[in-house]
Amino acid sequence: MISIPWQEKPKDHSEVLWRYSENPIIKRDAIPTSNSIFNSAVVPFNNGYAGVFRCDNKAVQMNVFAGFSKDGLHWDIEHKPIIFQEGNTNMIHSDYKYDPRVTFIEDRYWITWCNGYNGPTIGIGYTFDFKEFFQCENAFLPFNRNGVLFPEKINGKYAMLSRPSDNGHTPFGDIYISYSPDMKYWGEHRCVMKVTPFTDSAWQCTKIGAGSVPIRIDEGWLMFYHGVINTCNGFRYSMGAAILDKDRPNQVKYRTRQYLLSPQTPYECMGDVPNVVFPCASLHSHEEDKVAIYYGAADTVVGIAFGRLSEIIDFTKKNSI
Amino acid sequence: MISIPWQEKPKDHSEVLWRYSENPIIKRDAIPTSNSIFNSAVVPFNNGYAGVFRCDNKAVQMNVFAGFSKDGLHWDIEHKPIIFQEGNTNMIHSDYKYDPRVTFIEDRYWITWCNGYNGPTIGIGYTFDFKEFFQCENAFLPFNRNGVLFPEKINGKYAMLSRPSDNGHTPFGDIYISYSPDMKYWGEHRCVMKVTPFTDSAWQCTKIGAGSVPIRIDEGWLMFYHGVINTCNGFRYSMGAAILDKDRPNQVKYRTRQYLLSPQTPYECMGDVPNVVFPCASLHSHEEDKVAIYYGAADTVVGIAFGRLSEIIDFTKKNSI
Amino acid sequence: MISIPWQEKPKDHSEVLWRYSENPIIKRDAIPTSNSIFNSAVVPFNNGYAGVFRCDNKAVQMNVFAGFSKDGLHWDIEHKPIIFQEGNTNMIHSDYKYDPRVTFIEDRYWITWCNGYNGPTIGIGYTFDFKEFFQCENAFLPFNRNGVLFPEKINGKYAMLSRPSDNGHTPFGDIYISYSPDMKYWGEHRCVMKVTPFTDSAWQCTKIGAGSVPIRIDEGWLMFYHGVINTCNGFRYSMGAAILDKDRPNQVKYRTRQYLLSPQTPYECMGDVPNVVFPCASLHSHEEDKVAIYYGAADTVVGIAFGRLSEIIDFTKKNSI
Amino acid sequence: MISIPWQEKPKDHSEVLWRYSENPIIKRDAIPTSNSIFNSAVVPFNNGYAGVFRCDNKAVQMNVFAGFSKDGLHWDIEHKPIIFQEGNTNMIHSDYKYDPRVTFIEDRYWITWCNGYNGPTIGIGYTFDFKEFFQCENAFLPFNRNGVLFPEKINGKYAMLSRPSDNGHTPFGDIYISYSPDMKYWGEHRCVMKVTPFTDSAWQCTKIGAGSVPIRIDEGWLMFYHGVINTCNGFRYSMGAAILDKDRPNQVKYRTRQYLLSPQTPYECMGDVPNVVFPCASLHSHEEDKVAIYYGAADTVVGIAFGRLSEIIDFTKKNSI
Amino acid sequence: MISIPWQEKPKDHSEVLWRYSENPIIKRDAIPTSNSIFNSAVVPFNNGYAGVFRCDNKAVQMNVFAGFSKDGLHWDIEHKPIIFQEGNTNMIHSDYKYDPRVTFIEDRYWITWCNGYNGPTIGIGYTFDFKEFFQCENAFLPFNRNGVLFPEKINGKYAMLSRPSDNGHTPFGDIYISYSPDMKYWGEHRCVMKVTPFTDSAWQCTKIGAGSVPIRIDEGWLMFYHGVINTCNGFRYSMGAAILDKDRPNQVKYRTRQYLLSPQTPYECMGDVPNVVFPCASLHSHEEDKVAIYYGAADTVVGIAFGRLSEIIDFTKKNSI
Amino acid sequence: MISIPWQEKPKDHSEVLWRYSENPIIKRDAIPTSNSIFNSAVVPFNNGYAGVFRCDNKAVQMNVFAGFSKDGLHWDIEHKPIIFQEGNTNMIHSDYKYDPRVTFIEDRYWITWCNGYNGPTIGIGYTFDFKEFFQCENAFLPFNRNGVLFPEKINGKYAMLSRPSDNGHTPFGDIYISYSPDMKYWGEHRCVMKVTPFTDSAWQCTKIGAGSVPIRIDEGWLMFYHGVINTCNGFRYSMGAAILDKDRPNQVKYRTRQYLLSPQTPYECMGDVPNVVFPCASLHSHEEDKVAIYYGAADTVVGIAFGRLSEIIDFTKKNSI
Repeated sequence: MISIPWQEKPKDHSEVLWRYSENPIIKRDAIPTSNSIFNSAVVPFNNGYAGVFRCDNKAVQMNVFAGFSKDGLHWDIEHKPIIFQEGNTNMIHSDYKYDPRVTFIEDRYWITWCNGYNGPTIGIGYTFDFKEFFQCENAFLPFNRNGVLFPEKINGKYAMLSRPSDNGHTPFGDIYISYSPDMKYWGEHRCVMKVTPFTDSAWQCTKIGAGSVPIRIDEGWLMFYHGVINTCNGFRYSMGAAILDKDRPNQVKYRTRQYLLSPQTPYECMGDVPNVVFPCASLHSHEEDKVAIYYGAADTVVGIAFGRLSEIIDFTKKNSI
Repeated sequence: MISIPWQEKPKDHSEVLWRYSENPIIKRDAIPTSNSIFNSAVVPFNNGYAGVFRCDNKAVQMNVFAGFSKDGLHWDIEHKPIIFQEGNTNMIHSDYKYDPRVTFIEDRYWITWCNGYNGPTIGIGYTFDFKEFFQCENAFLPFNRNGVLFPEKINGKYAMLSRPSDNGHTPFGDIYISYSPDMKYWGEHRCVMKVTPFTDSAWQCTKIGAGSVPIRIDEGWLMFYHGVINTCNGFRYSMGAAILDKDRPNQVKYRTRQYLLSPQTPYECMGDVPNVVFPCASLHSHEEDKVAIYYGAADTVVGIAFGRLSEIIDFTKKNSI
Repeated sequence: MISIPWQEKPKDHSEVLWRYSENPIIKRDAIPTSNSIFNSAVVPFNNGYAGVFRCDNKAVQMNVFAGFSKDGLHWDIEHKPIIFQEGNTNMIHSDYKYDPRVTFIEDRYWITWCNGYNGPTIGIGYTFDFKEFFQCENAFLPFNRNGVLFPEKINGKYAMLSRPSDNGHTPFGDIYISYSPDMKYWGEHRCVMKVTPFTDSAWQCTKIGAGSVPIRIDEGWLMFYHGVINTCNGFRYSMGAAILDKDRPNQVKYRTRQYLLSPQTPYECMGDVPNVVFPCASLHSHEEDKVAIYYGAADTVVGIAFGRLSEIIDFTKKNSI
Repeated sequence: MISIPWQEKPKDHSEVLWRYSENPIIKRDAIPTSNSIFNSAVVPFNNGYAGVFRCDNKAVQMNVFAGFSKDGLHWDIEHKPIIFQEGNTNMIHSDYKYDPRVTFIEDRYWITWCNGYNGPTIGIGYTFDFKEFFQCENAFLPFNRNGVLFPEKINGKYAMLSRPSDNGHTPFGDIYISYSPDMKYWGEHRCVMKVTPFTDSAWQCTKIGAGSVPIRIDEGWLMFYHGVINTCNGFRYSMGAAILDKDRPNQVKYRTRQYLLSPQTPYECMGDVPNVVFPCASLHSHEEDKVAIYYGAADTVVGIAFGRLSEIIDFTKKNSI
Repeated sequence: MISIPWQEKPKDHSEVLWRYSENPIIKRDAIPTSNSIFNSAVVPFNNGYAGVFRCDNKAVQMNVFAGFSKDGLHWDIEHKPIIFQEGNTNMIHSDYKYDPRVTFIEDRYWITWCNGYNGPTIGIGYTFDFKEFFQCENAFLPFNRNGVLFPEKINGKYAMLSRPSDNGHTPFGDIYISYSPDMKYWGEHRCVMKVTPFTDSAWQCTKIGAGSVPIRIDEGWLMFYHGVINTCNGFRYSMGAAILDKDRPNQVKYRTRQYLLSPQTPYECMGDVPNVVFPCASLHSHEEDKVAIYYGAADTVVGIAFGRLSEIIDFTKKNSI
Repeated sequence: MISIPWQEKPKDHSEVLWRYSENPIIKRDAIPTSNSIFNSAVVPFNNGYAGVFRCDNKAVQMNVFAGFSKDGLHWDIEHKPIIFQEGNTNMIHSDYKYDPRVTFIEDRYWITWCNGYNGPTIGIGYTFDFKEFFQCENAFLPFNRNGVLFPEKINGKYAMLSRPSDNGHTPFGDIYISYSPDMKYWGEHRCVMKVTPFTDSAWQCTKIGAGSVPIRIDEGWLMFYHGVINTCNGFRYSMGAAILDKDRPNQVKYRTRQYLLSPQTPYECMGDVPNVVFPCASLHSHEEDKVAIYYGAADTVVGIAFGRLSEIIDFTKKNSI
């Protein structure tokens, strides 16, 4: 395994996470047709990294694009969107695709995204090589967003987090888990995490959604998620962490009362949608005790934040709601 | 088979459906604790009829109750709500139950209803005898309403219509179909019918939802459904009919531009929610060319409307959008 | 001139207007296809009366129909909607037509209605004989409703009242006047009447709109109009009267603080849109000191109210805001 | 003390309260200028009864009127609204007055109402004889409604229930208590009762407000209040009962999960605001174990419901949330 | 004709338009009383340029001011707003004036703006010398914004684009054309362009409005317009181009799927209303193949973008929806 | 008295107020746990200054913290929030505390803040030494914000300005005054200032609220307040000044039509809530003719603006609405 992207914590920095000094790593015009590139997912691949990127074009149409990187910091993103072939279905209709996540399970890379089928729902696809892509049945009925697969089967079934929504700028939203024996039929839906009361933790009091693929740790599953507060000037998206039970991941063991990252820099506060920090992927190394979290900033660019796994876990346990 | 409830069409009545002259057949206080009884389902059972009734009590808590009738017109409703045992799951949480539908498939009576699990979703249960009831996994993630099973498997799978919603007085809503190999995991979600443009058919331009269990006819499946228009003084619920393709029931072959029944009588226009006609069940006889449609009126009482199957089918085909 | 419809004021009736005892005079199913007939207009014609009626069909599509009557009380309404030929334009697009008004000017009967052209605006047409109808250019840009022509030119120009609106259940609305030299181009737009402060006259505090064609009286123009209050259970439409200056009709001389008629009977309080009294036409005789006002009730049927012109004028002057 | 109005419970009536068979006792046009008379208050007075009545006139302006009755059922209401003189202040501004309550404390009759002072707040006045009336300082800042005084001082201070609101059709609202040493300055504000969760008791899940003046009983204070549910077709107002602690009346000892009365009759379901039952006063006799509750119906008329105090208290204790 | 303002396209700039490097050319405090100066219009005048500028003062009252420039980049704006004399009417009421456009037709400079007359509508005025100004009849009834005249008569009539609106932050809006024989009466209203479906071109899916005066080109009329998307953090205004048919300008021949300019710089993303690019005028030279587009940025300042006419036309034709 | 913080007006600065060149003086992370520090209050104390600061922690929970400074510019803020003991009540419940104001009256420092008690209301407390703090009865029923005490009794009573609100992002709001003989019971509520019509002064047309403690001047009381305009991209908060009558402070003598300060710098336009300037305190010296106004910026940091008292008063009188 190659090393994950990394930069040491700045001196005098007292927070658990810190931003990469060269943020944003992907600018809005990184490919010729793009209006913005953000809310994207990466995985280790072939002595380097591959990723699926949300690039909105200048007509502000949303689609996903493959990309490759040697170091996880400098990325070559394809100029054409991913074309999906038929996977376990011939119904691969898609009005739009956005906010992808990627994870490797068993023999292939699975991709989930917000898929336009009479409104947003969770699309599923897979690839073996990031060249050929196959699209499967949508996981759920509309309206849903932020579908995130666990990186291994749980009790013999695929497991997915998601966030039931409505068909607009949803002003509510909790995280659920669902299971599937075959990536085609889904059931055993359970509520995992709900928004918090305003007085307990206001940054996550309006809606929450799973972010990056959960990371297997001793305590269970470490998940980065986004939380939203509705201010008089719009939604503000921040990032927190939760630890779910290993075998029954609908049980939340710990969940940060504080955000780990909130919009504070100009590239997070200014852009197509101001005040958004939106994690969609992470790379980690248990050996090196490192994690690099990829997040969309202001719905315009991609940034990275770094942290020590042990420190994050410790913080999450000590500052749990 | 015993005869279905019936009353001949009044002279000079020019519509396809006509109301029972003794409507409402179930009054709001038919059991001691009830505030209202409406949106309920019936099936032939043991030389008579059985049903599952939505009775809101005087705290306006919603629950479902079993009931029995010799003739389908006079009903004895249990004074205690149905208690469900564990069916294919031990997760049988339910904050509330409302708007049940019932259908016999293979060896048992399946019941679907709007089930309160962090908001409305589709609950599933079954009974063999209307004495013991078993609850299964919820079919979908919240938020959903108006789950209606087909009365037989289609291509080897259970099939259910439903209406994805939000968590309030949903101002939108289309009808979808989903399939399951086992009544536990659901997938292959397809859009069946959408609301109509205001200028094409205004009574169904805001939201629609499946009503009674589809009836197998030569042309495919005959379905009664409700449609809603949003007037300046609230939602008005009317009833129409559609015919779906036999093997691919997400294909709508015909659909009435006109409503078949709209709120016009005092018991439909006055009550807890004025101006509601909401079909949830029907009894039919192909031999006698009859159908009796049970519908909730004004969210307060239950009424019946009668019609000739052949006439309804003919009207639906000739007046299709 | 034949006598206008009439019934004497009931004893002990203390109000200025009184309802016809046989109301509603036109029922919702007066023609085979109709869901409802309301908000309609009548004029003297050929030793009797002719009218243009809003009939919504059972698909709840809105259109206008011609009708004829000997006595103004019993009406024969055509079973087919009016077909318009090209008048002063070949752009006679119409998604829907509703709420017609009719008035005779110089040599023909002019009809105005709410015309669907990318939303509601004011359609104009004319007929000489109520057999052939011709459609002209829409008077205004969308969104507009309640266009009512004066029955004669003012200062050499056609004059029309209207109510600028938005594209939904408009929660605001004042009455304006506009002028045209040729029934094609309109200008000189002036505000005539605005909604009243809640504390001055609450029944007309949300929106108002011109009703019947203004009647020429000594004091100027007598106009019946509707006013709306937004209650917690929806809009309630009532009727008042105003007297406009003869030569400068954008000047309001008098305007009733009280309503003249509000929804109080079952046919006004129950129907497709409860609590609506909506005047669209009147017949009057200065000699006999009579007026008969036609109004839509509950967006479902047509009623008549009677009054003495002199008494109405007197009341309007004495109870002016 | 003369007997309170009464009619025995109908046979086969299973509810705790029953309606007077001659309801409504006051019709909308009981005085010449009135559009509607409802939400009004009565007290024993001079071998009979006096009351303060909300009469909206035909301009739908809201004001309060004095009235007198021998039997509590047949009322003579003054044709002119009450004129208030300066009480403990010269600031007796009032844009409108509505929803009065009346109670006798020590030496005079105190009246509270919803007073228009830059929006709704709680007005206070008093009279010794129902001829001369005096207005005091408003109790609170806007926005407030449903101010109801206790009929005696508590711990040496006047006590008032109220319902903080906003400036429109408030979609929320809980009951608070406040204290005053002098009917001029108010403080010690405490929350008394909040709306209930939808699943616990839906008829009171949107907002609640104190109704009639609390009745001193052995268990503390018996209070009738209204609760509101927000249906897709508007607010529905029902009535329940609560028992508050005698000395610390912000403590709720019991509170009915069920409503005691909900809109079910035509005069409650049809009117200016359909589906409203709104209690504002009661007469009771401990000796005869009777209570007569006066309530506004459909914001249009006044009705009475009767009950046995012992039965109501028993019901409230046994069916408490 | 003097040269229009110009700066060559930066190297490596791949877009059709590019910003002036000294943007914003007019700062918010360019005159002593101004809070902001933006959404303004310029024309060639007397060997230089003249303009009409929207300057909101520090009470945030909106008015229009004359200004003059030698080079189109450095402007002297009058410190007093324009005073209008009576033009073709004595009704020159104006609660406020904003978002002016200017064009020369035949013998004078015509100015249109959003005029406050019981809400926003389209005001019309003219000047011969930018010293004396004359105000005409408002073109339309309220509510309307973004009235833009064509620079020559079409088929013998004046032609104006406009955007019917409502009385608030209108969440909808399409572009219409209307005609007038005399700048007083307007008619022949036609819909020109509507918002696009979200999936086709999201930046213009909420509302659109005409921007600068259309430019006569071989293909017809080149028009720059603004389009709006409603994000969860407010409206974002971008700029596109359309080509209308020469003689029937309600026919859209081409329209850019992509925006030509969207808010990306700090002065476009930060200000009184963040994320606004709003074109109101352009200067062009067919000979030099140049266009300079003046646009308001963030409702605070004025910027310029440059482009090659031929390139813009080519892009519009090749990237049309 | 030590000197107040000061910096001379920059050359060429034409406004009445000017910003401190080192703004923001308190950064968002000035204490380890803080997400943001803003909307805070300071007073002279012990040869220096003390203050009460709103610090939201990283869970975005709101609380108030004591702080001390030698020069009013560099502040040491306690790392633990203020703990209140029981003052004139044992009901010191507080879900949250925010937006404090401080003033010295007679013998102690009184603190008011927005206190969470079933929604926002006005909390009152006092301290003698900024070490021990005592909490009193809430002044009002919910919902209220921006409670500001006068620095001395008026006519023998405590006087407080406040802004009645609702329970969300209140879209309305005027300033009232209330009086109390004892800091426990409040009454004599009077409206002081209302929002302005949009056309008169738009920056304060949506809601207004008292800012810093009124300053006693010859003309009466000088008050800095905030005003809000609702743009299509959210609320924008600016600052103005008013002069109230000395003895009857509900009488507004002068009030600036223009704002004195509006959000224009990056630290005012970018942050947790963009475009907010929110004054909560001021220090002044009549002798030196100076005032330093402390204001929250973008709900994130604290800034200072300076001015000459005489110039502000003069400006307010000359530019009054």
